[in-house]
Amino acid sequence: MRVNAYAAPAAGQPLAPTTIERRDVGANDVLIEIQYAGICHSDIHTVNGDWGPQPFPVVPGHEIVGVVTEVGSDVTRHQVGDRVGVGCMVNSCGECTNCRNGDEQYCAEGMVGTYAATDRDGTTTQGGYSTHVVVDADYVLSVPEGIDPAAATPLLCAGITTYAPLRKWEAGPGKKVAIVGLGGLGHMAVKIAHALGAEVTVLSQSLKKQEDGLRLGADHYFATSDPSTFEQLASRFDLIINTVSAKIDVDAYLGLLAVDGTLVNVGAPAEPLSLNVFSLIGARRSYAGSMIGGIALTQEMLDFCAEHGIGSEVEVISADKVNEAYERVLASDVRYRFVIDTATLA
Amino acid sequence: MRVNAYAAPAAGQPLAPTTIERRDVGANDVLIEIQYAGICHSDIHTVNGDWGPQPFPVVPGHEIVGVVTEVGSDVTRHQVGDRVGVGCMVNSCGECTNCRNGDEQYCAEGMVGTYAATDRDGTTTQGGYSTHVVVDADYVLSVPEGIDPAAATPLLCAGITTYAPLRKWEAGPGKKVAIVGLGGLGHMAVKIAHALGAEVTVLSQSLKKQEDGLRLGADHYFATSDPSTFEQLASRFDLIINTVSAKIDVDAYLGLLAVDGTLVNVGAPAEPLSLNVFSLIGARRSYAGSMIGGIALTQEMLDFCAEHGIGSEVEVISADKVNEAYERVLASDVRYRFVIDTATLA
Repeated sequence: MRVNAYAAPAAGQPLAPTTIERRDVGANDVLIEIQYAGICHSDIHTVNGDWGPQPFPVVPGHEIVGVVTEVGSDVTRHQVGDRVGVGCMVNSCGECTNCRNGDEQYCAEGMVGTYAATDRDGTTTQGGYSTHVVVDADYVLSVPEGIDPAAATPLLCAGITTYAPLRKWEAGPGKKVAIVGLGGLGHMAVKIAHALGAEVTVLSQSLKKQEDGLRLGADHYFATSDPSTFEQLASRFDLIINTVSAKIDVDAYLGLLAVDGTLVNVGAPAEPLSLNVFSLIGARRSYAGSMIGGIALTQEMLDFCAEHGIGSEVEVISADKVNEAYERVLASDVRYRFVIDTATLA
Repeated sequence: MRVNAYAAPAAGQPLAPTTIERRDVGANDVLIEIQYAGICHSDIHTVNGDWGPQPFPVVPGHEIVGVVTEVGSDVTRHQVGDRVGVGCMVNSCGECTNCRNGDEQYCAEGMVGTYAATDRDGTTTQGGYSTHVVVDADYVLSVPEGIDPAAATPLLCAGITTYAPLRKWEAGPGKKVAIVGLGGLGHMAVKIAHALGAEVTVLSQSLKKQEDGLRLGADHYFATSDPSTFEQLASRFDLIINTVSAKIDVDAYLGLLAVDGTLVNVGAPAEPLSLNVFSLIGARRSYAGSMIGGIALTQEMLDFCAEHGIGSEVEVISADKVNEAYERVLASDVRYRFVIDTATLA
């Protein structure tokens, strides 16, 4: 099946319209007619070659919402007409301890990314900037009615990436949670942490987005460019979710944690960070990392978001605006996620 | 009350006999006739000035076991004739959240160290290399009969320092625990982790102490100087307790952790460490720190050790051998803890 897509032809080159081949629908596969595909900062890193060589041409997109138009003979969990989503992974071994524990993203054989990855059959995966995709039914999520499909799209990456650590480290009533950075990930973290019942503080470089932050559910908002912030908030938080991939002063943020508090990175700078172990020992603190989430947890997140009326704040664009959108993401000029209306590719 | 002691007169100078003043026994105080005082590596760091200027002369010693010889009018938890112990702290505010949670070692106003610290009445504390000490009854532990008093002495620091993280991060049946370093702390960690029911692996620089490690309770023993160790044990452990204060390759050790695993430092190098955040994110790992333990937990540890017949492996020395013992600790020539027989000070 030949379908329309937007692809990066080579590292650092603008994306352009093309066609790609989708595999035949296998017994356990689902064919999805894509409605929306989100633009994640990691799409840009990948096509720019920041993360090493890629199997160009690359069709990015790992935040996908659409409708099932065909199912394989063995598929029971999805039906034609269902609204579904696909996130950052489309396959894993299914048999290792991590897969069996529902942590497919940490598959011992390596999860298969939604694009620019080698699938278990040896083919190269291509992502959601496209009209259709064929995905193993076990990696396809149900997107509840109740959430606007465009607003639901970024939940498949930005939503689960923040929901997973908030749940793991038990954000909830009585807990003081800080979110570092109010971008695509950060704005989802604020909404979800607030819905979980935590007291939410945004730590942003400036107070520029303060009004937004409070509207999205934050109780407090501080500028990290103001050194007094770090004195004022010392030993305050039970949990800090750092959504910023740039290098940070880890010791300064660890100092904001109470005894037994945890700082969780959901992004990572390319260079190593420096850390003074006394920052950990002085209050039994932890520095942790978390990467997206398993399939069952992603479904739980979608159901939770539907129940609490949570979607992403999105700006819907036509496919021909992708390169412009990339520029604006790099300039932090988006509140808070671009979503491509893939009907414009048809 | 003037009592005999061994003190460091100035930074880097050998310890020498002296006398010091102990305060009168207050209403909530206990007077202890000291029987044994352990030598902890941190005693050496302190008197050498590695950790900054100190209020010399300094009498070190924060592993103390003795017998109660007098109690203040308000004391109910200890009686004359009881065998008791004192660890790394002798006071804290008692009122902050951390103190109320039993984490007096993380007191918001700062715990009062057993020596070279300023007590809440403004006096300077002096440690256990001495014949007697007066301590607030709330910071005095009961040392169960059942444990040899010399072997019990290092439990007050080395024991609780390792017991606390092993309990906090749930070492027990079905858990794979690694102990980095087989010294004063490490040998206690092996005994305790084994008694808690965990599968215990020692990661030591060489295989020199392998026989000891297995005798103390380890199931496996690997040399970290052999690079294949890090390949062979990749993603193996649920918990790693790092007892080594020297700079380590944090990423290499994090790579030995399974999903959700935690690396805990109980010591800290003076210089900052370097860490690649991908080591955390790639398997939802944590890097944590832990410092001794609260009073209630220290009592729990002593009772646990008595129940399981756990003591430290000690070499008992007379007080006049302290300087020689320091040299041997620095040369790692002790299996596994020196304990001063303080009767030799009388």
